Amino acid sequence: MASGRRKSSKAGAGGQGEKVPDPAISLEDLKQRLETEFPEPFRPGGSLSIVRIAHGEAQLRYAFHPRSLRPGGTISGPTMMILADSAMYVAILASIGWVPLAVTTNLSIHFFKKPGPRALDAQCRLLKLGKRLAVGEIAIRSEGEDELAAHAVSTYSIPPNLR
Amino acid sequence: MASGRRKSSKAGAGGQGEKVPDPAISLEDLKQRLETEFPEPFRPGGSLSIVRIAHGEAQLRYAFHPRSLRPGGTISGPTMMILADSAMYVAILASIGWVPLAVTTNLSIHFFKKPGPRALDAQCRLLKLGKRLAVGEIAIRSEGEDELAAHAVSTYSIPPNLR
Amino acid sequence: MASGRRKSSKAGAGGQGEKVPDPAISLEDLKQRLETEFPEPFRPGGSLSIVRIAHGEAQLRYAFHPRSLRPGGTISGPTMMILADSAMYVAILASIGWVPLAVTTNLSIHFFKKPGPRALDAQCRLLKLGKRLAVGEIAIRSEGEDELAAHAVSTYSIPPNLR
Amino acid sequence: MASGRRKSSKAGAGGQGEKVPDPAISLEDLKQRLETEFPEPFRPGGSLSIVRIAHGEAQLRYAFHPRSLRPGGTISGPTMMILADSAMYVAILASIGWVPLAVTTNLSIHFFKKPGPRALDAQCRLLKLGKRLAVGEIAIRSEGEDELAAHAVSTYSIPPNLR
Repeated sequence: MASGRRKSSKAGAGGQGEKVPDPAISLEDLKQRLETEFPEPFRPGGSLSIVRIAHGEAQLRYAFHPRSLRPGGTISGPTMMILADSAMYVAILASIGWVPLAVTTNLSIHFFKKPGPRALDAQCRLLKLGKRLAVGEIAIRSEGEDELAAHAVSTYSIPPNLR
Repeated sequence: MASGRRKSSKAGAGGQGEKVPDPAISLEDLKQRLETEFPEPFRPGGSLSIVRIAHGEAQLRYAFHPRSLRPGGTISGPTMMILADSAMYVAILASIGWVPLAVTTNLSIHFFKKPGPRALDAQCRLLKLGKRLAVGEIAIRSEGEDELAAHAVSTYSIPPNLR
Repeated sequence: MASGRRKSSKAGAGGQGEKVPDPAISLEDLKQRLETEFPEPFRPGGSLSIVRIAHGEAQLRYAFHPRSLRPGGTISGPTMMILADSAMYVAILASIGWVPLAVTTNLSIHFFKKPGPRALDAQCRLLKLGKRLAVGEIAIRSEGEDELAAHAVSTYSIPPNLR
Repeated sequence: MASGRRKSSKAGAGGQGEKVPDPAISLEDLKQRLETEFPEPFRPGGSLSIVRIAHGEAQLRYAFHPRSLRPGGTISGPTMMILADSAMYVAILASIGWVPLAVTTNLSIHFFKKPGPRALDAQCRLLKLGKRLAVGEIAIRSEGEDELAAHAVSTYSIPPNLR
């Protein structure tokens, strides 16, 4: 068993034979709402695309664009921060449904390896999904690479009256 | 190649056929040296015991003792911090051999669920193992539970002349 | 009032004429309640003593005791974590009154310099004091020293029905 | 002076009557080199401007531009992350001279208050300036405001052969 967090992120549940809840929103519905709310990154052909969602999880891709490069030809730290934060946001929405007012309260990111001029993949898993707070971790890698480019842990505050 | 996460990162991608290096020190040797250096926690019957090591990984257990309890009958935050830090230390030694002067430079810990009066298990995986810095994540659970009690990310500084 | 930091954060300046609220609880009252709730550290002669409180601030001292030493004769990291967490707890109680169920949700600590065998002083300032979350920073120094031994940022969750 | 970190950040020195070293590079020289290396943000009229440097400190301003806004009319989190990271970079260069290869290894940021459509000010102070690592804190406020919009702690790795 690699992580175990997969199940434990189920906010209170967890367990071997346990049934993982379905996402709280369909991928198509989520994509449409995000594109309406944040047209720039989430429009078709925009920088961010959602690869996969599940309860407590999200996988996003940040398309390569030369404007993300910094001197030296590697992708900038802020680009990775945006990707990490977006992956966390999508993982929360996938788990509790469309609550666009969820806001980041903390992001802590470690940078390991400067990513070359390629797309970036982010894999987010919620570590905890409470009524008021959600905490998740995000692994960022260059497309097709195994080694981590960055790893983040993020906390979101969930509006009280919306759950 | 450095990162122990390589293997542990299975979670989605991750070098299937990849060969994982052996630990840099045997479990028996490590136990003896730790017991000599830190007799209080690591002696037989002490609070900390090493369950398993691998390159880039360590699993430790913190035995239950009533003195770890705080008002309310749950195990204290500092107990979990000590366990997280110890698991990280052991994972580094398992990966680079006996370098006792490796020191914590940062520990960031999120607390999720107050653990009841039982032993605690910590699973540490290195996210990055560089020449000067190692970064790892540590998942803490009550014995036999699936849900996380706490999750930490820690950075250690590795003495320059010892690698 | 939003931020205890308001006054202290001027960094050199400090509340141009701004009125700082009084502490929400007197130092004597707070000491008695803490001693009842957590007798071990907060009893007279115990390891922790409160030096000063103000709205959004607290100053604590951790008395030197040989059991806090680790190999090498310096004070252990967990001792500094306990001190940081306690200073944050006291700063919150000083600002909102006796709400003992406030709990740490995150602590991130950087270690800079191993402290020698002396008392440790912690100075906590709240950066934000909201209805549900408080965030503060804690500076830790050896008694009489100017250089930092450690610096922490901590988040507490405040029970919803108690404010 | 409220914080006392001003002195203690002097990496080993500290103390009341203590003489603070001059910046390791003049403001004009630093501005020119940054504009050459990172023309986009640091050119005259670009988004980032350096207000002040001192040994162990830097103050930067992020000019308001509508493209920094997110839905709701507040300035985005990534904008604050870029500002925090840039302020840390400038504070390090002000303290050790022109070492452009210094790289962020960790950034932890707390968001407190969504900043309105105005310029943002960042005040960075180094908490520790070692040979291999520098750690600093960054306070971010909307122009003319006293309350914090965000607070970050960041670690940079300094290339070994350049000091």
